[in-house]
Amino acid sequence: MKKKVHKECMSALTPVRDTLDVISGKWKILILISIWEGNSRFREIERSIPKLTSKVLAKELKDMEEHQLIKRTVYDDYPVRIEYTATTYSRSLEKVIKELHDWGVNHRKVIFR
Amino acid sequence: MKKKVHKECMSALTPVRDTLDVISGKWKILILISIWEGNSRFREIERSIPKLTSKVLAKELKDMEEHQLIKRTVYDDYPVRIEYTATTYSRSLEKVIKELHDWGVNHRKVIFR
Repeated sequence: MKKKVHKECMSALTPVRDTLDVISGKWKILILISIWEGNSRFREIERSIPKLTSKVLAKELKDMEEHQLIKRTVYDDYPVRIEYTATTYSRSLEKVIKELHDWGVNHRKVIFR
Repeated sequence: MKKKVHKECMSALTPVRDTLDVISGKWKILILISIWEGNSRFREIERSIPKLTSKVLAKELKDMEEHQLIKRTVYDDYPVRIEYTATTYSRSLEKVIKELHDWGVNHRKVIFR
């Protein structure tokens, strides 16, 4: 059936879903930008984003580390010091974020015309 | 504090969030593509996407109509006939979807290296 969303089309969408899984949700892009801006300590990142709780931040940082967007470094000081830094790879999201931003700016004009 | 995510940066992110609100979730992009492919009747769209339930489809179609991505036309036939068509405006999402797709394809290579 021509009209059926072809199998290839469905599988072609998997990468779109992958990306949305990585960047969707309220906090991930905000946290990434906070780290891009130079916030590297847990408390710093947390304080830089209103209404973000420690529990949520801990989970998102773990996800982002798994997706190789950030790196977690433990310094064997006294007390132990942990720093989060953005990977060069995370910069590859800039184009996606820009595209999302531009569409969103235009969408507001369309919706609130 | 330089490192704090500046107010302007936070407000600059609102359009990114707007876009994610419009396209995020499991189904919206799949439904839009199904309609782009020519599926215009409720059952057609529903059958074209595995595991999509009528209840979810009804809600997503309503959202997408509000966001002016699709148009709902009621034909006063007997029985009444309802068709969903994509708006020209919805095509503006093609670039965003392509960017999400390309990043996702590359991300799989990075993650499963």
